[in-house]
Amino acid sequence: MKGTVIYGPRDIRFEARPEPKIMKPTDAILRMSVTCVCGSDLWPYRGANPITQPTTMGHEYCGVVEEVGSAVENVKPGQFVIGSFATSDNTCPHCQYGYQSSCEHREWINTAQAPLLRVPLADGTLVATPEMPPDEMLPGLLACSDVLGTGWFAADAANVKPGGTAVVVGDGAVGLLGVLSAKQMGAERIIAMSSHDSRQKLAREFGATDIVAERGDEAVARIKDLTKGIGADSVLECVGTPESMMQAISSTRPGGHIGYVGVPHGVELSGEKLFYRHVHLHGGPAPVRRFLPELIDLVWNGTISPGKVFDLTLPLDQVAKGYRAMDERRAIKALLRP
Amino acid sequence: MKGTVIYGPRDIRFEARPEPKIMKPTDAILRMSVTCVCGSDLWPYRGANPITQPTTMGHEYCGVVEEVGSAVENVKPGQFVIGSFATSDNTCPHCQYGYQSSCEHREWINTAQAPLLRVPLADGTLVATPEMPPDEMLPGLLACSDVLGTGWFAADAANVKPGGTAVVVGDGAVGLLGVLSAKQMGAERIIAMSSHDSRQKLAREFGATDIVAERGDEAVARIKDLTKGIGADSVLECVGTPESMMQAISSTRPGGHIGYVGVPHGVELSGEKLFYRHVHLHGGPAPVRRFLPELIDLVWNGTISPGKVFDLTLPLDQVAKGYRAMDERRAIKALLRP
Repeated sequence: MKGTVIYGPRDIRFEARPEPKIMKPTDAILRMSVTCVCGSDLWPYRGANPITQPTTMGHEYCGVVEEVGSAVENVKPGQFVIGSFATSDNTCPHCQYGYQSSCEHREWINTAQAPLLRVPLADGTLVATPEMPPDEMLPGLLACSDVLGTGWFAADAANVKPGGTAVVVGDGAVGLLGVLSAKQMGAERIIAMSSHDSRQKLAREFGATDIVAERGDEAVARIKDLTKGIGADSVLECVGTPESMMQAISSTRPGGHIGYVGVPHGVELSGEKLFYRHVHLHGGPAPVRRFLPELIDLVWNGTISPGKVFDLTLPLDQVAKGYRAMDERRAIKALLRP
Repeated sequence: MKGTVIYGPRDIRFEARPEPKIMKPTDAILRMSVTCVCGSDLWPYRGANPITQPTTMGHEYCGVVEEVGSAVENVKPGQFVIGSFATSDNTCPHCQYGYQSSCEHREWINTAQAPLLRVPLADGTLVATPEMPPDEMLPGLLACSDVLGTGWFAADAANVKPGGTAVVVGDGAVGLLGVLSAKQMGAERIIAMSSHDSRQKLAREFGATDIVAERGDEAVARIKDLTKGIGADSVLECVGTPESMMQAISSTRPGGHIGYVGVPHGVELSGEKLFYRHVHLHGGPAPVRRFLPELIDLVWNGTISPGKVFDLTLPLDQVAKGYRAMDERRAIKALLRP
């Protein structure tokens, strides 16, 4: 088969790769239905993470179980399943505590931009749908694997409550689905920060009540204005730069909560500044597995349509085009069909 | 009258100061019953905060109302009252949200090591006891003003719950009262970090179930051992140095909570490290006013005896001796009697 490999900044190749095989009795092999490019894939693509050797890519996935190891009990060949980018046994103390992305036996999936995928810890990682989904539901189900799960965790970590005010920093796919998540959790006012027309539109569609197009200090001033000088109860930080984190901290009311899910790059926090701002800070790699059953239900029932973040669809072998379009912000998120 | 002034590192003087007067209609003047030296007073004493001019000291207080401004309604002359180091109107949005130490009209008390004290925003800041307390209750009531309120906030911010495991970093008076607070909130296991005999003893008296005397990596290893390799649900950071904060972060389970109340000095947090540790972080100047009614009740009813942290009592005019004894760790906390 062929799979996606990054060789260096802006050098994505779709090239011959060995077919994945069952390696442990707890593994499963999936035939990918759809996969995609993640905003976090752009960090190495843009050279922000060093690439010391050709590296496989892809960690968002859903598809049909092709084969399972001898110890796998919860899923079987022929089932349609979705899993997280972080595998989990779903039984260790961290999993039981709701932090499956810190599972004692966690492995990171990183070969999903390919037609076949080996998933370790299949029993604790994969969740099956009630039956085979129709084709038009695939983007929404794929979103559960990471981008929705991560936006959902941002809202959860930011303690979004019915009637509260939420600010979403970042208008990438995660930020947009952070808006959707805050809406689902009952936020009354959702302020999306975006200076980009089509993203503003989708943010409104997902539930944003206000758009702040300004940046930096002006953006903070606008948010203070919109919240009567108080600041927001909940702020979802969905970027990961020093600027976005400062924006988040400055937008939060004393005692308010920041949920941060943008992988931090160069973010250093002053203990003293945090201290006097009185914010709650929580984040990390989203424990998507905690949310998967609920999110799959919401998509299955048609309550939410997170698949709308995919505004570009490509055949998998044109994966490099997907990276390029997202890098140049011509696409919010690229869906790939094997 | 005379009051306490710091002139430079280790230069504390008790010298002539003007008597405080009502300056605003919302002020009250208290005649101090007891006051004390705070662990945070040691930062400037040790030269960690620059002292550019002679500066008055003291922010923990309780006493009898001597006089009130024309707008004060909730307290009256002759009442025994306790207040926080941060004044609050107790009506602004931040106060209503439980963050009175971020009150829109906050002022910092800093003249309390003196026989008379002006308290701004008396109505929102001061809480009266049911009647005049007996002399032996004064240390406990004084503790509510800051050191207990701050330890309590550390436990609250660290989300201590019945049955949970709490680690307390720091064996100063705040840390020791963090132990007491965690016990009151129902923690089943309370691990106090202390290498000092008399402090270990008091920690046990306050409810510590385990003592870790090691430091640095060895301490973290011991805590991991004591928590079956998982880490603690709740960690109270009661020091404020880079080392203590790292100790706290390393001792917390993924998804666990850190409450930090040590004023951070030189603490820089790596966003990436925090991200992958999955901790919740919350802290700041304790909103003592939120807890005051409950804490005063607990002391009044004899449920808790936080006054035990005062292991040195001095006449107020020997305040400099109190600083010295705490700086040299010969005393946990010095009570001062005018």
